[in-house]
Amino acid sequence: MLTYDMEQRGSKPLYEYLYICIREDILKGFLKPGEKLPSKREMSKNLNIALITVENAYAQLIIEGYVTAREKRGYFVNAVTTGTGTEIQGAKRGIQSGDKNKAKKAAEAAWVVDFSSLELKEDAFPFKTWAKLMRRILEERQEAFLQKPEGRGVPELRRAVAEYLRKAKGLNVTADRIVVGPGTEYLHHLILQLLGPGKIVAVEDPGYKKVGMIYESNGVKCLHVPVDENGLIVEKLKKSNAGLVHVSPSHHFPTGCVMPIGRRKALLEWAENENAFILEDDYDSEFRFDGRPVPALASLDDEKVIYLNTFTKTLAPSIRIAYMVLPETLNRRYDEKLSFYSGAVPSFEQYTLAAFIGEGYYERHVSRMRNYYRTQRARILQAFWDSKLSAFADVEEHAAGLHFILKLHTNNDEEVLKTLSRKRIRLTPVSDYCYNDREKYNHSFLVYYTDQNTEKIRWAFDLIAESIKK
Amino acid sequence: MLTYDMEQRGSKPLYEYLYICIREDILKGFLKPGEKLPSKREMSKNLNIALITVENAYAQLIIEGYVTAREKRGYFVNAVTTGTGTEIQGAKRGIQSGDKNKAKKAAEAAWVVDFSSLELKEDAFPFKTWAKLMRRILEERQEAFLQKPEGRGVPELRRAVAEYLRKAKGLNVTADRIVVGPGTEYLHHLILQLLGPGKIVAVEDPGYKKVGMIYESNGVKCLHVPVDENGLIVEKLKKSNAGLVHVSPSHHFPTGCVMPIGRRKALLEWAENENAFILEDDYDSEFRFDGRPVPALASLDDEKVIYLNTFTKTLAPSIRIAYMVLPETLNRRYDEKLSFYSGAVPSFEQYTLAAFIGEGYYERHVSRMRNYYRTQRARILQAFWDSKLSAFADVEEHAAGLHFILKLHTNNDEEVLKTLSRKRIRLTPVSDYCYNDREKYNHSFLVYYTDQNTEKIRWAFDLIAESIKK
Repeated sequence: MLTYDMEQRGSKPLYEYLYICIREDILKGFLKPGEKLPSKREMSKNLNIALITVENAYAQLIIEGYVTAREKRGYFVNAVTTGTGTEIQGAKRGIQSGDKNKAKKAAEAAWVVDFSSLELKEDAFPFKTWAKLMRRILEERQEAFLQKPEGRGVPELRRAVAEYLRKAKGLNVTADRIVVGPGTEYLHHLILQLLGPGKIVAVEDPGYKKVGMIYESNGVKCLHVPVDENGLIVEKLKKSNAGLVHVSPSHHFPTGCVMPIGRRKALLEWAENENAFILEDDYDSEFRFDGRPVPALASLDDEKVIYLNTFTKTLAPSIRIAYMVLPETLNRRYDEKLSFYSGAVPSFEQYTLAAFIGEGYYERHVSRMRNYYRTQRARILQAFWDSKLSAFADVEEHAAGLHFILKLHTNNDEEVLKTLSRKRIRLTPVSDYCYNDREKYNHSFLVYYTDQNTEKIRWAFDLIAESIKK
Repeated sequence: MLTYDMEQRGSKPLYEYLYICIREDILKGFLKPGEKLPSKREMSKNLNIALITVENAYAQLIIEGYVTAREKRGYFVNAVTTGTGTEIQGAKRGIQSGDKNKAKKAAEAAWVVDFSSLELKEDAFPFKTWAKLMRRILEERQEAFLQKPEGRGVPELRRAVAEYLRKAKGLNVTADRIVVGPGTEYLHHLILQLLGPGKIVAVEDPGYKKVGMIYESNGVKCLHVPVDENGLIVEKLKKSNAGLVHVSPSHHFPTGCVMPIGRRKALLEWAENENAFILEDDYDSEFRFDGRPVPALASLDDEKVIYLNTFTKTLAPSIRIAYMVLPETLNRRYDEKLSFYSGAVPSFEQYTLAAFIGEGYYERHVSRMRNYYRTQRARILQAFWDSKLSAFADVEEHAAGLHFILKLHTNNDEEVLKTLSRKRIRLTPVSDYCYNDREKYNHSFLVYYTDQNTEKIRWAFDLIAESIKK
């Protein structure tokens, strides 16, 4: 057990001394990359110091990139050297000069190539514009700070969203059918209250697992409906008694398929016959790289379809603003039953976003990001074709979204993943998003359009090929 | 039906022309204060223009104070003149020079004295400090914009809150037991998921009605437990099978009573015996005007009590940040079952608030607001003693909170309210917050510490006295 003599701290605060001790041990290599630190509780017991002291020390180590916290697993030492030792200097400088980039790099060094998710780069967010608008709102809309935000969201934002939906998605929507919330998760909570108790909710399998988790966490029974190459299999919905089905017809997650018009009609017919609602999650429809955008399901029928989208994907993960467009019946039910809720998104953010959309910045930003991802995608596809992997795998993709599916010609996914993990390459299997029938998606993996450099990506693809050949 | 010739609009956009027409009719007195405008739908049908056009025109009229939207009731013309006609000028100037205060005044003119709630004045919010911190965070924490906020809230904010709770409330709390959310309503949703299905929730009667509404809206059975002068009657909880009871022991809403230590112990004992939890809503405990602050119930037992508080009351209604402190058992359950949720408060707001608390601004602000409300309270109490009403009513209050209870010596509440409404004085009966047994609280009304001038308040009190004498 890691032990330090806290009496040696001199005039330093306890937490700072503990932080320095651990940092020195990491820099000197006494604590190795990947090594797990004692839990905060163990550490506090062992050193006989307050939990908050350990907490503050660990927090400092995390912020500076020496340590990574993994949910439910604990605290792990990061690799702060990459052979040459220059990163040690970097990390040290990081502390003294507040150079966060270096520290951040150290934190990310845990994975050499991470295909499993996307981290936005700082230049991906229009800070200057956002900051300019924020300052303006801060000056112009002081009175809004002192008012309770409307439950549905401030009218300016709802009007801007309605206008955007008309222009960009051809959805004929008025602001009074829109409800804004702090993320889609929150809106799911409202939807289940609109449905009322005892309803069954159908979700896609494979799919965006969190949706099912939210409904189940609220005591709602979930039906996991299989997906084929045209999206959710409507036949399987019949006799299900589901009152709501969650789908992503423009771009299914994670397979990427688009629901064709025939299947869409069948789904709408089902909803009509069963008196059920369809929740259309249009989460990344902004990112389609060729052809025309796929029209929203909601444009075919606004009586049966709840349209759901978020600004988190297109703007930044810390911007917690999502919205839904309610069919008239549910919209009236919202007014009757849920209008007692206060708005949960700060007015300040809402006005800033309203201005950002209304003044055309949003469309420009989305278009810039679309180009960015288009380029990343082309680069990664090229790296794939240039690599040895192209002989041992297929790419499945639909020129949309932020990842494609890599189908490996292997029968041993376990072995591949083990090799990759040893080489610190991260790849998520599609089966991780399955509820039933995981085998159906064996050998399929998600490849996000990472901004890692092309050489490293090719190296990773080559390594995957090697692990298959073995 | 209000009709305008839209062909006369010249080069103006439709919505602007409609807005001008209605504005002129209000200013000329063709539309009278209190008159209801046609619904947006009727107006759009009648004039054969798009709903959004009417929507935008009405929105402009509301922003400028000509019209007030009342939930579920419609749109009503405000009084923009108060006899002398100068307000018309004011309102007109309002439009041309963007002088929002004038327009706001016009909007508020609907009530001469409004005792039913509080509107914060602009100087009540520390804009300068907040703006300074926002700008700093915007520069220093750009990387935070691009990261998904932790489900529980950013560690900096949770640490700042823990530190504040230790210093200001004597609660021995660590940051890892805190969960931050966008308002208490959101946290109630998490709590009901922590409790699991089938639980009964007990709430105070009278009480803060929204709490029961939230649980009932989620299909949870609510038990409305009567309150006496010592708070919730614990006897009535027995054999209730409630798994959770919501109380405000530091300052019951709306009666203002404080739960004495004997009742607190009885409540804790009940929770212990029934294996239930107590949800302590400490919503306005910052505003106690003499004596020492009442210790939180959670300081007696942190295994049975969930502590809940918000920054909305002390800072501003548009700041949607609340937090709860979970007992160990529920905290573990949160980690196991609810950590899949993303944070719903923008990181940017969280860092700003963390700095605001951590750098001592919050305590100073609360202390300033406490002094402000103390002064308002003294002023209104004085106005009461100086008025004729002091012979016809009693004041019940506990030197805390933002309102007191006025007990009228009358047997005809209806008659009093009718007279007041005619004179445009607004007063809310305590029975509005009752579920059962409304008669018990007859003749009792809430008087918030409004910032209306003393003369008007005395005039209102005199009027109430007159209406009783009749």
